[in-house]
Order: sequence, then C-alpha cells, then structure tokens
Amino acid sequence: MNNKAMYAISYGLFVVTSRVGEKDNGCITNTVAQVTSEPNRISVAVNKSNYTCDLIRESGVFTASVISEKADFSLFKRFGFQSGRDTDKFLGFDACTRADNGTLIVTEGTNAWISAKVEQMIDLGSHMLFIAAVTDMEVLSDVPSATYTFYQAHIKPKPEAVGKTPEGKTVWRCRICGYEYVGEELPEDFICPICKHPASDFEKAEG
Amino acid sequence: MNNKAMYAISYGLFVVTSRVGEKDNGCITNTVAQVTSEPNRISVAVNKSNYTCDLIRESGVFTASVISEKADFSLFKRFGFQSGRDTDKFLGFDACTRADNGTLIVTEGTNAWISAKVEQMIDLGSHMLFIAAVTDMEVLSDVPSATYTFYQAHIKPKPEAVGKTPEGKTVWRCRICGYEYVGEELPEDFICPICKHPASDFEKAEG
Repeated sequence: MNNKAMYAISYGLFVVTSRVGEKDNGCITNTVAQVTSEPNRISVAVNKSNYTCDLIRESGVFTASVISEKADFSLFKRFGFQSGRDTDKFLGFDACTRADNGTLIVTEGTNAWISAKVEQMIDLGSHMLFIAAVTDMEVLSDVPSATYTFYQAHIKPKPEAVGKTPEGKTVWRCRICGYEYVGEELPEDFICPICKHPASDFEKAEG
Repeated sequence: MNNKAMYAISYGLFVVTSRVGEKDNGCITNTVAQVTSEPNRISVAVNKSNYTCDLIRESGVFTASVISEKADFSLFKRFGFQSGRDTDKFLGFDACTRADNGTLIVTEGTNAWISAKVEQMIDLGSHMLFIAAVTDMEVLSDVPSATYTFYQAHIKPKPEAVGKTPEGKTVWRCRICGYEYVGEELPEDFICPICKHPASDFEKAEG
C-alpha cells in the first residue's frame, strides 16, 4: 500500500506553545482543527517526543498561533527543527506576547492565535491527541494562512534536483525539512537529524 | 470574544462514506487529519446529526474521498446539503466504486481516498470524533486538493454583495452554503435550512 494518498490531506500550520512554571516552549504542528462549535473546541495531535507535549500535559493549557503565508523559514527552524529539551526556543525572540492563559503568542509570520484549555487527552502511542475548549482568540492580520502545501512550495528552501550523488548513490529526502540521506536503503527506524521526523516522511529524491 | 480567529484554521474537504447492510451514505467534512504515522491513523469529527455518523458508529468503517480543486458545487449539494435520512444520496450517481471495506469511494471531483477502521470513538456532544487505522488508500489524480478556503473562493457560487434588502433589513449569510436569512437578529438556535449548519456559521452580509 503506497502512502501517497496521505499527502492529499490539507493542513494548516501552527506554533503550539505551552508553559509550566517559568518554562515556555513551542513546536510546529499541522493538526489543529475545530471539532465542535458549541462549545467551541479544537483538537491537536502532538508528538510525545516534543517537549511542548509534556508542558501541555502538565499545564493543561496551550495557544496555537496560526502561521501565515508571510512566515519565514527561520520560524520553522526555531520551533520545528530543534528541541526545547536542549534549548530555550524563545531566547532572543521578540515576536511574541503573553496570552491570558500564561502561554506565549507568536506575533510575526502568524495571522491569528487561539488559546485553549485541555478537556481530554487521548494517548495514541507516538502522539497525544488533546481535545480543548477555546478560551480566547484574536485575529492578527489578514495575510492568508499558510497551508502545508504552501510551506512545501514557497517557504521550505528548494533542494537541488539530484536523485543520485555523483557516485551514483540513491538520495532520500525528508519531506518536512529537506534533509538528505545517502544510501540505497533508508533504515526503517531512521529519524531525521534536523526535524526528527521518521523514515516514513522520507522519499527517494527524483533527479 | 470574536470568533473570526477560528476561520484562520486551514482544512481540506472530504466526502466521508460508510455502509450498514445495503445502506450507503456519505457526508462532507473538513476535519480529516493524520494523527499518527506508525501505525497510520486518521481522525475525523462528524456531526451526530449526519446519518453517516450513525453508519460509522454501527459499521466501524469509513472511506474519506479527498475533494480536489476540480470538484463541482453539485458534489457539495449532493453530499452536504441534504440528509441521507430522507434521501439516497447515491441514487443516480455513477462516479463511485466500492472499496474493500464495503464503503463507496467517490471518484469524480476527488484526487485520493483513504479507507479506515475505527479504533476509538470520542463523544464530543454535537460531534463524534473517530480515531481510525488506515486500511487502504489510493491516489486518483494529481489535481490539487481543495482547501476550505479554495471552496469559499472558487467553488461556492458567489452571492450578490448586498448587506441590506431593498427594504433596509439586515441579511445574515451562511458561510457554508451561502443561504441568506433576513432579519435584524439571527435567532441563536437557527439552523441553516440548506446545509444544516448552526447560527454560529452565519455572518452579517456586507454590502
């Protein structure tokens, strides 16, 4: 069964932030969706390997800042391609303000934010699915929201179109961040060293 | 709290179909998302007022056909603006084929389909959230997926830009299907007679 039909699902992109004590963190997700309107609730699936997942589990609150088409790749590098376990992602980052629920709102490269309070956590193995009541929200700009397709086409730097190395070896490319692995077979348990996505997010680079 | 930040969330559009006995049905949803990749699982929130919700609860299987940018408004009218409780939505509809799980795949105005088996049902009041393992899938075409924003801009017929009736009365317009309600105040419990969405999906038409 070829996995490509999964890529037909459309997504937005979000910086999901949380806070415990004095510790703020945020990560990039694509799975925020409104699941009921009365009351207004959203769901978001967060990979447990993300430190933000731990903070949401502990604090029960988060804010999803909606990434817009004007976002720079540096936003994805800051929040998506490093771990809050090793780094303070907000160090030297001024484009933020604090929401009433205590979490940070990202105010550049975003067009809206939604704060929410967790009502249910559903353990899905690799991810936690949070169902949360919307507690506050605001529109920041009328720039369109960046879809995942837009990110792939216009925000992520273009890799060179090489399917083989000069020595004729196969190149596997991470669909998320563009990292390239060289080798005939990509190990099943391979994890992208840049963005931490699994082997299933790699594809053979086409020359 | 103004609700407009909710509109910044990006979505795809899907015909979600299920079958119990000889009864097929399908409805339009915007909330399909991949929630884990190993194993490959998707989530979808379906309004309990949709007959399809009943069929999924009973059969435990569904297929999400991914709507593409070439979909005609008639697809939305057929699957979104009438109820399978009153009508056979597949009557006279040839653009479908049957998946291995017994449900119907919509093959026109779509670019892929994903069949899934329900693992968990989470009752959210107005909606059921289904968490389901992907059992089969296929890409049908390389036409881009229709986002909800694309539907609003290019598929939904354009209403005339009138904010008031000739008599000066306020017009409230359903954001989903374009239905117009005339009156100074829209009743809180109003349900769109065309697409069955609640008052919260209406906005004052701007002239």
